[in-house]
Amino acid sequence: MTEADAASSDEVAVHDANSSFYAALEERDLDAMAEVWEHSDRIVVAHPGWPMLRGWARVAGSWDAIFRNTGYIQFVLTDELVTVVGDSAWVTLDENILQSAAADELSGSKATSVNVFVRDEDDPSRWRMVVHHASPVSAEG
Amino acid sequence: MTEADAASSDEVAVHDANSSFYAALEERDLDAMAEVWEHSDRIVVAHPGWPMLRGWARVAGSWDAIFRNTGYIQFVLTDELVTVVGDSAWVTLDENILQSAAADELSGSKATSVNVFVRDEDDPSRWRMVVHHASPVSAEG
Repeated sequence: MTEADAASSDEVAVHDANSSFYAALEERDLDAMAEVWEHSDRIVVAHPGWPMLRGWARVAGSWDAIFRNTGYIQFVLTDELVTVVGDSAWVTLDENILQSAAADELSGSKATSVNVFVRDEDDPSRWRMVVHHASPVSAEG
Repeated sequence: MTEADAASSDEVAVHDANSSFYAALEERDLDAMAEVWEHSDRIVVAHPGWPMLRGWARVAGSWDAIFRNTGYIQFVLTDELVTVVGDSAWVTLDENILQSAAADELSGSKATSVNVFVRDEDDPSRWRMVVHHASPVSAEG
């Protein structure tokens, strides 16, 4: 495999890890979400409008709370860009979100997100999420 | 230099690059801000409530607009954590912001931020900002 092929293969793997994250979120599947993340103290999540939460226990707790309070959630991702630098990578994108607390009241919103991944030390073909930072985009934006 | 010393020295250099970013912002100094950033198409900024802007031209334009519309701005940074993985690094922190459009009307706000840096290819002791993503934290957070 040439260096260019390796770089391209890393980009595909990071893109897949990012897709698995949004799939776990749409399915409100805590086990799938646990597969996506690195389980460490250095990981961070900031949901739209929320303060930053550090470490796997707090990150997992926040997903559990969100999943329990979300009836339906769907993401259309736009303007996605994957950047790989050695053993870390980040994906920047816009999230166009359709969601409901009750199944019959859908509302739309938009967020912009930075997702950081690191290469798994035990399996170099896998990438684990270490940062998910999503922020609300104002309507005038 | 041992591997541990090199890692620690990288963390200090990334911390310094992050401090230079907030100094440039407080001083509303576009030249200093230009020194902080990598000038490339892959860089991204998302100011609180703003959509994501890509590439140095748009990033620089946004700082110019912010500096022209800000009379005074001061940051107290808390809960700062630097993580270095090879040639990239990210800093997560809370921004406690005091600012005014006119010099006599100060208002406070809080944001949480993820700042991503990459090691400069020409000078490995320097780190350049590639992502600044700051999001507003709601009062109930």
